[in-house]
Amino acid sequence: MKPFYCSYFTLAKTLLVGTLSCCNLSYAEQTQNVILIIGDGMDSQQITMAKNYYNTPMLLMDSLPVRAMVQVQTSAEDKPKQVVYVADSANSATAIATGQITSRGRIATSAKTDLDLKTIAELAQESGYATGIVSTASVTDATPASFISHISLRGCENPSMMVDGEYFGGTKTNCPSDLIKNSGLGSISEQIAQGQTDIVLGGGLKHFGFTTEDQTSTVLALAEKNQYQVLQQKTQLEQLSSNGKVLGLFAPSTMEVQLQGTDGRKAEKPNPSLLNHIDWRIGSVEMPATMNCEKNPEYKDTPDLALMSRVAITHLQKRSSRGFFLMIESASIDKQSHARNPCGSIGEITQLNQALQQALDFAKTSPNTLILVTADHGQAAQIIPDESLFAPVGVPIYTPGHVARIVTQGKSTMAINYATNEFPVEEHTGTEVPLYGNSVAQGLVPASTTQVELFTIMKRYLSL
Amino acid sequence: MKPFYCSYFTLAKTLLVGTLSCCNLSYAEQTQNVILIIGDGMDSQQITMAKNYYNTPMLLMDSLPVRAMVQVQTSAEDKPKQVVYVADSANSATAIATGQITSRGRIATSAKTDLDLKTIAELAQESGYATGIVSTASVTDATPASFISHISLRGCENPSMMVDGEYFGGTKTNCPSDLIKNSGLGSISEQIAQGQTDIVLGGGLKHFGFTTEDQTSTVLALAEKNQYQVLQQKTQLEQLSSNGKVLGLFAPSTMEVQLQGTDGRKAEKPNPSLLNHIDWRIGSVEMPATMNCEKNPEYKDTPDLALMSRVAITHLQKRSSRGFFLMIESASIDKQSHARNPCGSIGEITQLNQALQQALDFAKTSPNTLILVTADHGQAAQIIPDESLFAPVGVPIYTPGHVARIVTQGKSTMAINYATNEFPVEEHTGTEVPLYGNSVAQGLVPASTTQVELFTIMKRYLSL
Repeated sequence: MKPFYCSYFTLAKTLLVGTLSCCNLSYAEQTQNVILIIGDGMDSQQITMAKNYYNTPMLLMDSLPVRAMVQVQTSAEDKPKQVVYVADSANSATAIATGQITSRGRIATSAKTDLDLKTIAELAQESGYATGIVSTASVTDATPASFISHISLRGCENPSMMVDGEYFGGTKTNCPSDLIKNSGLGSISEQIAQGQTDIVLGGGLKHFGFTTEDQTSTVLALAEKNQYQVLQQKTQLEQLSSNGKVLGLFAPSTMEVQLQGTDGRKAEKPNPSLLNHIDWRIGSVEMPATMNCEKNPEYKDTPDLALMSRVAITHLQKRSSRGFFLMIESASIDKQSHARNPCGSIGEITQLNQALQQALDFAKTSPNTLILVTADHGQAAQIIPDESLFAPVGVPIYTPGHVARIVTQGKSTMAINYATNEFPVEEHTGTEVPLYGNSVAQGLVPASTTQVELFTIMKRYLSL
Repeated sequence: MKPFYCSYFTLAKTLLVGTLSCCNLSYAEQTQNVILIIGDGMDSQQITMAKNYYNTPMLLMDSLPVRAMVQVQTSAEDKPKQVVYVADSANSATAIATGQITSRGRIATSAKTDLDLKTIAELAQESGYATGIVSTASVTDATPASFISHISLRGCENPSMMVDGEYFGGTKTNCPSDLIKNSGLGSISEQIAQGQTDIVLGGGLKHFGFTTEDQTSTVLALAEKNQYQVLQQKTQLEQLSSNGKVLGLFAPSTMEVQLQGTDGRKAEKPNPSLLNHIDWRIGSVEMPATMNCEKNPEYKDTPDLALMSRVAITHLQKRSSRGFFLMIESASIDKQSHARNPCGSIGEITQLNQALQQALDFAKTSPNTLILVTADHGQAAQIIPDESLFAPVGVPIYTPGHVARIVTQGKSTMAINYATNEFPVEEHTGTEVPLYGNSVAQGLVPASTTQVELFTIMKRYLSL
């Protein structure tokens, strides 16, 4: 157990009430907690998509009393003062986690100068708070990694990726300055294994199977040596009773998502006739058939985000009497948008709301809990008219991108357009993103804010 | 001048203070006002685009203390209970103006049953408030029309459009049930000319040049017969001193916009090489050259939205001692997005903020003024990476749509993607839209709301 601290709040309360001793206060009274929930890529289009699908004007997050919009902040690598208008999850999570703007691909390190930037989780840890990370991605993926590790390139997730690592699309990753032999902190999985985060839950088992840079053991063994209890099964998570540090790795990489399109179908290209190929004003077009959202048969006994969040919250209460900082990420809202699968994104927005329910339930009995729900950046998906606004003109009108036509629970057809590129993976977009906060956030979060400011708000709330 | 009424608020205040007589109260004390500012198509992407261009995290509207998101609401024409996921400006303005969900193209009339739906402006008028409409579109265009007229099809803007009218893309408009001879109210311009709105300012002069349905005069002459002072020049607006009804028509149709891309350039198609046409993984692509935003040379002495708003506010104060309802629309945020001209949209977002400044200045001395800023629906524009997130893969990656690469005031390049269709005019999108409110809106507007609820909020504020 960590040393016991009273927060300023409880100290002040003790001084005021006089007869109370700090240590007689209940957990709820003596703690301050921050639960930060990130919907990766969860912009206004994605949120509306989920509402439309479920035929409701309100998701759980819409019931929160505080609403703001957040500016996403990115800089150029070579010129850190130059603005870049579209973020990736690495630099945007870094902005939230450290209060510093950096360049795409960087994990809690500065653009150009490559300095390690202290994170909110590290600051909380230093002040005696328990800290936790929950994600449906690999725990080494950009968003979780930005809170608990420091590295120059997000791809350096495990020791094998540090020098000429095989990465996305045949590209190579190289993080020479981060090698331990070069006085760096090592790959992301090694940093997590050697870290002090009280509970880390998500996917990413494969990144812990590699031999450590010093060749002495696997990264997983390194974690166990560092007193981590390693979980790999949902049942282990459900039955967790230990008071020690926990590392749960429930999938080789990203965890399975809950929903998919009919028979795994994603957005598809409209199919214009030969005549229409010759001249857009003539001929016809065959649009993709409608689809439903159905359960992903691969999901099986994957632990859901709500379960992971509930276990993390319960566990963190045991780990410090001062309170905790917990980051929960629903990662595949983004990943499924990259893959042009709106059903996938919709299911993961549901997962986020179910995790939020766990946070709200906890806050009922621990009212000094700041809950913030936000996104890290925008994504490609757009809700477009299933019947063009210009249909009366009588010519074939259709997207140049991919479209999924989903039959919603309102028995209507919602068309989702993906058209940021023709590559197999869609781009992010640069829109500002939503923020929702519980009543504790009232007066703390301005109506228009920035990712850097979110760091300051959380830091101030925890008196760090 | 209209009959004098004390609002419930001022009556209550009078009763409480006792010694004050209602009629001794100043204008500011005895009135309740609503200023509703609509940015047509002004979704989160568009707002971020403007912030990026001006290199600021805050536009004026971001300084407002209340922020919410608004669900856009549309129904099918044949099945009014069936949801449709993308609106046009007619049905969405109708939802805000009347509190009733209707189908695309309808102006303050109900889907299928074609009943006239009473608008907030009409209700306000009946209760003794002054009412005003200001728009940079034709005053007969969908958004302004939905507050002060009732018709089955938005295209029926003037008498010539009521039977087989020539409309967009060679389509025909027909509003037989709205013909006066069929007990209808006539075309939109005839309804405005015969109406009681205290001040109507915008474009659309051409719609008033046609002969009325009964062939007795032009629509403009009808307006003059109905005691409207007609203005057509900016100087007339600047020098307005009349206390009577005012109809200002400062352009034949939509008013000119303030900004355009270099030499009038808009978003353009990337130009792939022949090899890339054959296989997307090879060859190269030529992206459109960057552009600046420059003044539109056609703008000339067009009255700006701020001037029209200021004059309308001043005029409305003379027209009723009870207060006023004023709708101000920056219309071409939308129209320029349809036309793939991001500079155009950005300039019109600036116009909206300048109009908002007029409203805020007025509210300083008339604190019982509810100011709401919102959009009616989403639009096509997306901020995408100027350098693809996947550039390291080394294949040509580019949008299948049109892209404009704008050099911002932050000396960086912002890429705006338009890819909802290949038609000359882009589609709307179905995203929920932002709402901003002044301090009067605190406690009145929930964090998540609907267009129908906005009607109720305004109605309640004016005790209608």
